[in-house]
Amino acid sequence: MFGLYYAPGTCALATHLALEEAGARYEAVPVDFGSQAQRSSEYLAINAKGRVSRAGDGKRHTHRNSRLLLFVAQRLPKAELAPLSDPFALAQLQEFNSYLCSTVHVAHAHKGRGYRWANDETSFADMKSKVPQTMAACFSLIERDMIKGPWVMGETYTVCDPYLYTIATWLEGDGVDVSALPKVMAHRQRMLERPAVQKVLAEESLNS
Amino acid sequence: MFGLYYAPGTCALATHLALEEAGARYEAVPVDFGSQAQRSSEYLAINAKGRVSRAGDGKRHTHRNSRLLLFVAQRLPKAELAPLSDPFALAQLQEFNSYLCSTVHVAHAHKGRGYRWANDETSFADMKSKVPQTMAACFSLIERDMIKGPWVMGETYTVCDPYLYTIATWLEGDGVDVSALPKVMAHRQRMLERPAVQKVLAEESLNS
Repeated sequence: MFGLYYAPGTCALATHLALEEAGARYEAVPVDFGSQAQRSSEYLAINAKGRVSRAGDGKRHTHRNSRLLLFVAQRLPKAELAPLSDPFALAQLQEFNSYLCSTVHVAHAHKGRGYRWANDETSFADMKSKVPQTMAACFSLIERDMIKGPWVMGETYTVCDPYLYTIATWLEGDGVDVSALPKVMAHRQRMLERPAVQKVLAEESLNS
Repeated sequence: MFGLYYAPGTCALATHLALEEAGARYEAVPVDFGSQAQRSSEYLAINAKGRVSRAGDGKRHTHRNSRLLLFVAQRLPKAELAPLSDPFALAQLQEFNSYLCSTVHVAHAHKGRGYRWANDETSFADMKSKVPQTMAACFSLIERDMIKGPWVMGETYTVCDPYLYTIATWLEGDGVDVSALPKVMAHRQRMLERPAVQKVLAEESLNS
C-alpha cells in the first residue's frame, strides 16, 4: 500500500498518474498548498522540504519527482513503467526526468515562486515576464531532440510520459505558443485517451 | 576511454573527480567558460544545452551532473562508486545527487546567472543578495538530515561525495557561515586527503 500526499494542480500529478497507471494499491491525500498547509509542522514532520508531494510504502518514502517516479516503477515492476533490466535505457529515462525536474520545472517556478530566489516585488515581476521565453526554449529542445514518439522513450509508455504531460499542461498558462510544439501537443492528447489519466484528472479536479 | 569536457572551477569537477577515483582511462578537455566557448557552434554541436560539462565513452554521452556521475559508476562497476545491486540504496544515492542538482546548484546559480531567469540588473542584484540565505538553508538540511558519515551514504565512498565536495567548496564565496556546518566541513577536509582529489584539483588549477 502506497501513500501519496499531493497538492492538486502541481507536479505531484505525475506520481499520481504513475501510481494509477501501475495499478498500485494507494491512498492519495490532498494537501492544501494554497493555505500553506505544506509548511505546517505536521506536514514538515513527514516532508522536511515542505514541497508539494511525498510518497512511500510505509517503510520508505521519498519526495523528489524524478525519484518518486522511479520508485513507483521499481516497486511495481510488473507494470513495466521503466526499462529496469537495461541500465543505459534506464539512465536515459532518468536523464529526461531529471531535465524536467532540474531545468524545466525550475524555469516554470520563476513565475509564481520568485520569493525562493529573490526578495523584491520588481524582481518577481521581471522573473515572471521571462517565463514564456525560458519555457519555450526548454520545450523546443524537448520537441526537437527528446520525444522519440509516440511516447517519450519510443514505443513503450514509461514514467517519463506522466511527467512530461504534467508540465506540458502548464504551457498555455506560462504564455508559450504551443502551435510550435506539435509533438508535445500530440503527446498531451494521447495521454488524455488513457483511462488512468482520465480517472486521476477527475479525482484531482474534485479536490482542487 | 572516456572523454570529459569541463570548465575549470564549475560543477564539472564532480565528474572529473569520479573518473579519477574510478581509475578510468579518460581524457579531460578544458573548455573556456569565461569566453563563452560553451556557446560556440562547435561545442553546442556536442552539447546542445551549452552547459559546463559533457562526458561519454565514444558511443554514448550525457551531460547532466547527477546522470554523469551514475554513468561513471555504472560503466566502471569495479570501482564500486554506487550500490549498483541494491535498487533502494541506489535510489537514495540518486535522490541526494538530484537534490544537489535541482535545488542546491539552482540556488547557487542565482548568484551569477540571474540572466537565465530574469532581464533586469536590479533583479540580478536582488537574486545575488539572497544566495547566502538559500545556500545556508540547503546546507542546513544536508548537515542535519543527509550526511550519514563519514561519507554521504555512510561507510562507503560513492559518487555523492565528489558532488557534495564540489558544491561545498562554493560556500564561503556564497557568503554562508560554514561554522554552522561541522559535518559538511569535516567531509570537505576528508576529501582533500584523497590522492585522486589532490591530483584533479592540481590539474584543474593548471587549466583555470
